[in-house]
Amino acid sequence: MDVIVEPKSRRTIREWNVKAAKMAKNSSNPIRALVDEMKLTPNPDKEMIALSIGDPTVFGNLPPSTVASEAVVEATRSNKFNGYAPCVGYESARVAVAEYTSWPSAPITAKDVVFASGCSGALDLAISVLVNPGQNILLPRPGFSLYKTFADAVGIHVRYYDLIPEKSWEVDLDQMESLMDNDTAAILINNPSNPCGSVFSIKHIREILAVAEKNKVPVIADEIYAHFVFPGHEYISMASQTTTVPILACGGLTKRFLVPGWRMGWVTIHDRHGVFEKEVRAGLTGLSQRTLGPNTLVQGALAKILTQTPSHFFDSTLQAIHRNARICFEALSNVCGLRPVMPQGAMYMMVGIDMDRFPEFKNDKEFTECLVTEQSVFCLPAQCFEYPDYFRIVLTVPEDKISEACDRIAEFCNVHYCREMMDTFY
Amino acid sequence: MDVIVEPKSRRTIREWNVKAAKMAKNSSNPIRALVDEMKLTPNPDKEMIALSIGDPTVFGNLPPSTVASEAVVEATRSNKFNGYAPCVGYESARVAVAEYTSWPSAPITAKDVVFASGCSGALDLAISVLVNPGQNILLPRPGFSLYKTFADAVGIHVRYYDLIPEKSWEVDLDQMESLMDNDTAAILINNPSNPCGSVFSIKHIREILAVAEKNKVPVIADEIYAHFVFPGHEYISMASQTTTVPILACGGLTKRFLVPGWRMGWVTIHDRHGVFEKEVRAGLTGLSQRTLGPNTLVQGALAKILTQTPSHFFDSTLQAIHRNARICFEALSNVCGLRPVMPQGAMYMMVGIDMDRFPEFKNDKEFTECLVTEQSVFCLPAQCFEYPDYFRIVLTVPEDKISEACDRIAEFCNVHYCREMMDTFY
Repeated sequence: MDVIVEPKSRRTIREWNVKAAKMAKNSSNPIRALVDEMKLTPNPDKEMIALSIGDPTVFGNLPPSTVASEAVVEATRSNKFNGYAPCVGYESARVAVAEYTSWPSAPITAKDVVFASGCSGALDLAISVLVNPGQNILLPRPGFSLYKTFADAVGIHVRYYDLIPEKSWEVDLDQMESLMDNDTAAILINNPSNPCGSVFSIKHIREILAVAEKNKVPVIADEIYAHFVFPGHEYISMASQTTTVPILACGGLTKRFLVPGWRMGWVTIHDRHGVFEKEVRAGLTGLSQRTLGPNTLVQGALAKILTQTPSHFFDSTLQAIHRNARICFEALSNVCGLRPVMPQGAMYMMVGIDMDRFPEFKNDKEFTECLVTEQSVFCLPAQCFEYPDYFRIVLTVPEDKISEACDRIAEFCNVHYCREMMDTFY
Repeated sequence: MDVIVEPKSRRTIREWNVKAAKMAKNSSNPIRALVDEMKLTPNPDKEMIALSIGDPTVFGNLPPSTVASEAVVEATRSNKFNGYAPCVGYESARVAVAEYTSWPSAPITAKDVVFASGCSGALDLAISVLVNPGQNILLPRPGFSLYKTFADAVGIHVRYYDLIPEKSWEVDLDQMESLMDNDTAAILINNPSNPCGSVFSIKHIREILAVAEKNKVPVIADEIYAHFVFPGHEYISMASQTTTVPILACGGLTKRFLVPGWRMGWVTIHDRHGVFEKEVRAGLTGLSQRTLGPNTLVQGALAKILTQTPSHFFDSTLQAIHRNARICFEALSNVCGLRPVMPQGAMYMMVGIDMDRFPEFKNDKEFTECLVTEQSVFCLPAQCFEYPDYFRIVLTVPEDKISEACDRIAEFCNVHYCREMMDTFY
């Protein structure tokens, strides 16, 4: 930037009139904005059950592995990790992430790892390095709302590609491709998905990559739910299925290790043909110098966390969530007016609402609002994910609560379901 | 932002050509850039002494208080702080910061505290919320280089106000005021100062605030070295000396508690007349939703760290640094061609170089480069701080090393000092 030494004219302002900068005004969380304007008055006779918060730690039923917490304790007491780390992260911790995220078909090394403050920080880095204000990024619909927050803040245009519920939320490939123009700077793929709980097959991942390859659009792979899949499904990293499409994959400890507050995230660079070599790598390093990396105690503990957390820890987390998914799916499948979509992984389930059958409610927001008022059960209306007429259930709550919540949702729907309309239409 | 559903034209790009976005290209650390291009080849016969890194932890002589590390251990083992905190921070931790940073004349409460990833994160928030691209911010010269990094990344113009070495680095008030125009969105004041080690008097702080008040320009107070002052000097918060100028003060654990890697920073809002009420507060909250706050384990430990760290911990840190400052100042005062400026706090000393007397070297960069080559002592050339013909010494190294470094600097200057020139000129 140019350095101006002399102002063009003197200051004439003589009253306090301080505005927030545009970026700050444009930074907002759509979920927060929507929830803030909802009338959430739980039924005083029923204990509140919040199925809304994507934080697996809130009910205390899913504590992190003691391996992870003791690794932090050890790192803290060692007094070795109090200073500034390199902005991209400690070398030893980057080695650990490279080993943890490498696939036989997509090996990476420490130089391909850049740390960030949580996976959201990683996503911010990846979007910021690839997309200029005025360019566009393709985002999934339904999708995690923070992508749009990042884009809006800096004037990046958002185009939504559709996920198809009837096809277990696979991408509508033709529609995705139809959105691309010469200003399309990246496609964001979130697999496994929040809010869908979908897990893409190898075949589908290759189909998506073929569209990216044909149109030469790099991919940002939000893989924060890596390995978070139910029995019978398989987590496949995007990077493992291409040798040509350059990918920035975003991950972190947050979900699989059940420690979202620790803010440990990373971008891994997958770029077999040097497409990112010229500018993008340096750009990531430059951006990381603004934030100076995540907490060093967690970085110091990272190698141990990634290599020594026992597999039964992951298994029991997944078992609990899978059990909740089945309970929920079975219960809500039998409720008139609801169409639950069975998830394959992550920790969410989307439930369609036949709004025609609930004429009292204008939309998913009013539906979920009234569900709080009458039944003290709160699910996020999928408007939050740009997907009206659905709501999202978080599956990490204790089993008795999820069963109870499903009973109350069923009761609620029975009360409000409008059978007469059926005669009208058929 | 507008959501475009259909592209204006089809994508015609058929070759990989991925550029980094402008913000990423514009994000760079001037220190890193300069140091990277220096030829740093230490003398193999002399052990390297780096007086360049503003990280008090590198030599191991200044460990953090065990109160701080044990508070983190306790927070970690409690399993209470693994989830997402509110983006602005846990209420209990914000209460602790409000109490820690309040002055009798400038009391604040939890609602005036917004957490960030380190003080750099806090500075990024404060600059981003107040200044739009195309507007300008007044920065100190010499000054910490990260301010410019933040500004450059988003196209904020930088104007430097001068600090006067002969007046213990006080602000040149007239020159500062002359820089202001109607696009001046903030003045950044760093007190105590990096790289100067200066500590402003009450009188001088009031003079600065009078200029801000007259011109109605809000202040960003970088007070990361709060309380970090030598005997005989007093730390005065900017906010304590005004009832009218709205101030965003930035602080954190980094320096006083000797844990820069922990990335615990905060913005405190001082705004007695509601100037920030309309937009700036909401803007800070909005921006904090992009980063989701700093590590929760440190947040969980924060109240204990701030209230229970014993005063002898701070005292002994300051004694060690003050001792080093005196050693250094005395030693270098006797060196021909150098003009050390005795610091009053923080952990740095600036040393002027009479470049006329060292005609072999074109500038401070070549001088410090050769000091590495011959004496294996590395000091940052003050070009890094927009202040040529000086170098900065970091005072947190062990005493024997600082003495040895001063001896070597003296030897270096004796070898290169050009006495003949004196005859030429006088």
